[in-house]
Amino acid sequence: MAKVLKGAGLRGQVAGKTALSTVGKSGSGLTYRGYDIKDLAKQCQFEEVAYLILKGKLPNQQELNEYKQTLRSLRGLPDALKEVLERIPADAHPMDVLRTGCSMLGNLETEESFDQQQQATDRMLACFPSIICYWYRYSHDGVRIDVETDDDSIGAHFLHMLHGKKSNSLHEQVMHVSLILYAEHEFNASTFTARVCASTLSDMHSCVTGAIGSLRGPLHGGANEAAMEMIEGFTSPEHAEKEMLGKLERKEKIMGFGHAIYSDSDPRNEVIKTWAKKLAEDVGDTVLYPVSERCEEVMWREKKLFCNADFFHASAYHFMGIPTKLFTPIFVMSRLTGWAAHVMEQRADNRIIRPSADYNGEAPRNVPPMAERD
Amino acid sequence: MAKVLKGAGLRGQVAGKTALSTVGKSGSGLTYRGYDIKDLAKQCQFEEVAYLILKGKLPNQQELNEYKQTLRSLRGLPDALKEVLERIPADAHPMDVLRTGCSMLGNLETEESFDQQQQATDRMLACFPSIICYWYRYSHDGVRIDVETDDDSIGAHFLHMLHGKKSNSLHEQVMHVSLILYAEHEFNASTFTARVCASTLSDMHSCVTGAIGSLRGPLHGGANEAAMEMIEGFTSPEHAEKEMLGKLERKEKIMGFGHAIYSDSDPRNEVIKTWAKKLAEDVGDTVLYPVSERCEEVMWREKKLFCNADFFHASAYHFMGIPTKLFTPIFVMSRLTGWAAHVMEQRADNRIIRPSADYNGEAPRNVPPMAERD
Repeated sequence: MAKVLKGAGLRGQVAGKTALSTVGKSGSGLTYRGYDIKDLAKQCQFEEVAYLILKGKLPNQQELNEYKQTLRSLRGLPDALKEVLERIPADAHPMDVLRTGCSMLGNLETEESFDQQQQATDRMLACFPSIICYWYRYSHDGVRIDVETDDDSIGAHFLHMLHGKKSNSLHEQVMHVSLILYAEHEFNASTFTARVCASTLSDMHSCVTGAIGSLRGPLHGGANEAAMEMIEGFTSPEHAEKEMLGKLERKEKIMGFGHAIYSDSDPRNEVIKTWAKKLAEDVGDTVLYPVSERCEEVMWREKKLFCNADFFHASAYHFMGIPTKLFTPIFVMSRLTGWAAHVMEQRADNRIIRPSADYNGEAPRNVPPMAERD
Repeated sequence: MAKVLKGAGLRGQVAGKTALSTVGKSGSGLTYRGYDIKDLAKQCQFEEVAYLILKGKLPNQQELNEYKQTLRSLRGLPDALKEVLERIPADAHPMDVLRTGCSMLGNLETEESFDQQQQATDRMLACFPSIICYWYRYSHDGVRIDVETDDDSIGAHFLHMLHGKKSNSLHEQVMHVSLILYAEHEFNASTFTARVCASTLSDMHSCVTGAIGSLRGPLHGGANEAAMEMIEGFTSPEHAEKEMLGKLERKEKIMGFGHAIYSDSDPRNEVIKTWAKKLAEDVGDTVLYPVSERCEEVMWREKKLFCNADFFHASAYHFMGIPTKLFTPIFVMSRLTGWAAHVMEQRADNRIIRPSADYNGEAPRNVPPMAERD
């Protein structure tokens, strides 16, 4: 099922070992530590999957209860961090906010030794939603929210802070599914960034800060935001079809379709699409979901391109009232799990990552005196 | 001269092209755009070399004057950035401070398009010394310094803010040399971090923030700090020899010697050693320089290990009154040049960097119900 890729960008070159996931292996599209993500998304909460990825086994009930309790206790933000967030303007890129919040946290609660790596990770898992929402609500609504809620899960905590009221159980369930689907994806560019940083034996906050910066790039994260911006401009399936055909005709880039590794489908799409449909029914939507389905049909019929994980995430998040610019920060709340687990894996069997370059520059030459320069 | 390296850490694997430098090619140890760094360090100011690396040619006198004037005009810090720096405690890791300062700058002065890449780089070159010194002097001395001085060069600006008085010409010259020697070094881990980030088409501040996080790691930056901590414990060359032999006997790691790419010498050592000696004479040192020379002799005699760029940088910086914990941030002030130039190069001919992994984890398995888990 996986494409054989060669050439630039280290495609097909092995940069290390991992026990965390398989992407595009035959018979099973995406597995975390051997478990198919479709099964995990059906049976588990996100905190179970985070435990699995970080600690290597699915937790039993007691372990899960304790882990969720630990995470709940770590939601608060230090005053100095809140004060930093208050100084970031409302028009900042939310990924820049999160990158800065993570980096600042590293100053206030530095990972002093690798013995603290699980603790540092749990802290980030618990407080990244706080960082996002504290900044968002302060800069957009002028309120200083209480980030220490008693919500059961990370997803419910996020929605509660964002909307100022407890989420319902459907929305909490969709957040579990979404966070599970995005949690880990082998050596993608942000994860690889984290591993390169980890290979210098730098601290966890540096690794995650760097990964956030890479996920920020439009070729990596952000596809669900771009998909949302496109589909919300379509007023009906017929309108969507006409516009999509025009875009294809003009060879415009359409986000949310195809994948660098998967060749005929993205296993995450089927899962999130089901939930997007449920949310559409729940809110009585008659436009956005049918529009999204039509986009999927057109892209497959015209280009044999399938929806990737991002496309139906756009409508799903939108139906839950999440502002488009917070879509990629949610990706961070989830993928943080994979990044941290890869950092731990790199540390456990490390060699500094230092590839070579092909030189295509000037031959050796003498430095001309200033007066003789063009 | 370069070792052939294989195996883990992408050693010997080509991850892209560069016209910026050659490391360890026969006949010339280190070149920037074809010029030997020994010639550059002898004939040029750091700003000339930054211009060369970033823009592809050595500037003529008018271009250099204009470039230095531009950099001088960009030294100020926005109030919000100063307020962030004031919230970082005195015991923070200075690299974490710089990582956070760079990330915060990205919120306040975001690179909105690649047309702004040179401008964003010049701004960082000009204000990173301000960020370091503003935080250092505020947190350690309780003063809010004026960062907008009229010093001629980046090195002089840094020393002026750090010490609260203008630097002398010898110190300014050594800063030029030091910043030139550290400016660029092909696909080392921090530069490669910047390129992986750039390959997602992320912004310049994300790339540099990530690179700072990687340089922070003890296997990458920080060797000059470790060397300083070692040599300042030696009271005489004889004491140094005895202690070094003991360390070798006990197989302790000794920093500042050997190199992943160079096999029989680091071309930067000869240059900085000459200047360390001049500084020793200038301050009337009779211990640290002779101790450093003895360490070099012992390591070569016993292990055939040569000093790398970092070893004599330790005493050189110390003679200029620079606190040890600011050594690696100076590395950033310089290497920023190479990082930014590599980002520009990656952007000009990009493919997302996405290597593969060898999977060594669990075979496919079913998710057990909660009640059946260990």
